[in-house]
Amino acid sequence: MGILAGGGDLPGRLVEACRATGREFFVIAFEGEDSEPIPEVAAARVGVGAVGKTLKLLHDEGCEEVVLAGPIKRPALKSLKLDWRGARLLPKVAAAKGDNALLSVVLDALEGEGFRVIGADDLLPQLLAPEGTLGRHRPSEEDLRDIDRGSQILRALGPYDIGQAVVLEEGRVLGIEAAEGTRALLDRIPSLKLAAGRGVLVKLAKPGQDRRVDRPAIGESTVRQAAEAGLAGIAVEAGGAIIIDLQSVTATADELGLFVVGIVPTEA
Amino acid sequence: MGILAGGGDLPGRLVEACRATGREFFVIAFEGEDSEPIPEVAAARVGVGAVGKTLKLLHDEGCEEVVLAGPIKRPALKSLKLDWRGARLLPKVAAAKGDNALLSVVLDALEGEGFRVIGADDLLPQLLAPEGTLGRHRPSEEDLRDIDRGSQILRALGPYDIGQAVVLEEGRVLGIEAAEGTRALLDRIPSLKLAAGRGVLVKLAKPGQDRRVDRPAIGESTVRQAAEAGLAGIAVEAGGAIIIDLQSVTATADELGLFVVGIVPTEA
Repeated sequence: MGILAGGGDLPGRLVEACRATGREFFVIAFEGEDSEPIPEVAAARVGVGAVGKTLKLLHDEGCEEVVLAGPIKRPALKSLKLDWRGARLLPKVAAAKGDNALLSVVLDALEGEGFRVIGADDLLPQLLAPEGTLGRHRPSEEDLRDIDRGSQILRALGPYDIGQAVVLEEGRVLGIEAAEGTRALLDRIPSLKLAAGRGVLVKLAKPGQDRRVDRPAIGESTVRQAAEAGLAGIAVEAGGAIIIDLQSVTATADELGLFVVGIVPTEA
Repeated sequence: MGILAGGGDLPGRLVEACRATGREFFVIAFEGEDSEPIPEVAAARVGVGAVGKTLKLLHDEGCEEVVLAGPIKRPALKSLKLDWRGARLLPKVAAAKGDNALLSVVLDALEGEGFRVIGADDLLPQLLAPEGTLGRHRPSEEDLRDIDRGSQILRALGPYDIGQAVVLEEGRVLGIEAAEGTRALLDRIPSLKLAAGRGVLVKLAKPGQDRRVDRPAIGESTVRQAAEAGLAGIAVEAGGAIIIDLQSVTATADELGLFVVGIVPTEA
C-alpha cells in the first residue's frame, strides 16, 4: 500500500488502519510551498513535480495499491521542479482545467504504471459521514433552510469543477469556496457575519468528482475553525464526505456548542 | 436630489454631474464600521440604522429624488443603532434574505415616503460600460474562454442573490465573490495563481437585481487591484456595470498592461 500524503490528519489515520490490519505501507509526503506540516509517518519526501521519483519509490517498495490522502496544494508552475517523467506529463497538466481534471491526469499516470488507485474510504469505510446528527446539538429550522439553500448552490456550481463548500447565515450567502480551501473560507467569515452563533458551513462532494481523490473532509480542526468563525454548525454529505475521527469531531462539536449533521442533498 | 453615499468614487462623480447641470443636491454619508473614507462632499453623516434621521434630512432639504451611490457595508446587528423609524423596519430587514432583498426594503421605505429613487446611471448614462475593448490591450483566446466560463458561473449563481464577480485562470476558478466584496476577492488571488499576468476578473449584474442600486462597478482602484492580483484583465457587463471614470480606468489599464472589456453575456 503506497500512501501519497498531503496535509491534515488523514495520512496518519490510514497508517493506523494499515498497522491495525497488519497491512504493509509506505508513505510518501509531498513538499510544497505553504504546505501543511509533513506527516511524521512519511518514509520519503518528494516535490510535487518529482513524478518519476515518486513512481520509482512506489515500484521499489513493491506497492501494488496507492491511496491519495489529504489535500495536496497545487503549486505555482515556476516552483514545480518537474523531473523528466513529470515533464512528459506537462502538456496534460497544462490542459487540465480545474482540479478534478488535474487529479484525473495524476490518476491516469498512476494507473498507467500498473498501480491500483483506491480511495481512503476503501481502506477505512467508517470514515464516511453517517446520515443524521452527530452529538448533542441539532440544527434549527433556520439552519435546515440554510443547509438546503447551500446544497442547491453547490449543485448549481457542480458543472464548473469548483469548491465544495459554502457558508450561509439566515439565507444570506457569506462565502463560497473556490481554490482557496475551507480554512481560508472560514477565516474570512467573522467580518461578514451579522451575529455570532448563527450560520452553517455546508460541504458536499462535487458532482462527477472521482471519489477516490479529493473527497470533502472535515476533522476536529474544521469544527474548531467553524466555531471561531461564529457558526452554529456544519453539514456534510452523508456517504460522500469524510469525517476524520468521528469521535473527536463529535466531542469537539459538543464542547463548542456546534451541530454536525450528515445530509442527503436533494438532486438539482 | 438626495445622494445617499457609500464608499468609493461614485458619490463624488454624481456631485460633479449635479454641479455641471446646475442641479441642487444634498449628500448624506453613512458611517459604518470598517467603512470607506466618508466622501468629502457629504453635508451630513448618519449611522446606517438612523432611518428616521435620514428620511427627515431628505424631507427637510426638499429632496424629491434620491440616488444610492457606492457600496454601503451591511453592519452587524449589534452595531446597527436603530432609531425609532429604523426599528419599525426591523422585521422586514430581518426577513430579508440576501442583499438584494435588503435593498428592496430600503427602496420601499424611501418610495413609501414619497421619494423617487433613481439609478446613478440615470444621472450619468455615460457611467455604463460600453461594449468592446477599452484601451490598448486585448483579451487572448484563452482569456475569452475564461470570460465565457466566468459568465456561465455567475449566471448559474443568479437565482441565489450572490456576488457578482469571479476570477478564473486558464479554466480554473480561483475565487467567487459572495459577501466579502471584490477587493477581498482580489486580495486572496495571488497565492492561488499558477503564474502572474494570466487570468481574468469577470463582473456581471445579478439577474433580477434592481438596477437602481448595487450595480457592479469598477474604477481605477479595481484595475490596480487586478494588476496586483496578477491578472491579465477585467471583463464587465456592457450596459450593466458602471465604470467610474472611463478615462482613468483606460489610462491605468494601458499603463499596467491589463485589458478591460465590456461584454454581452449569453443568457443562461
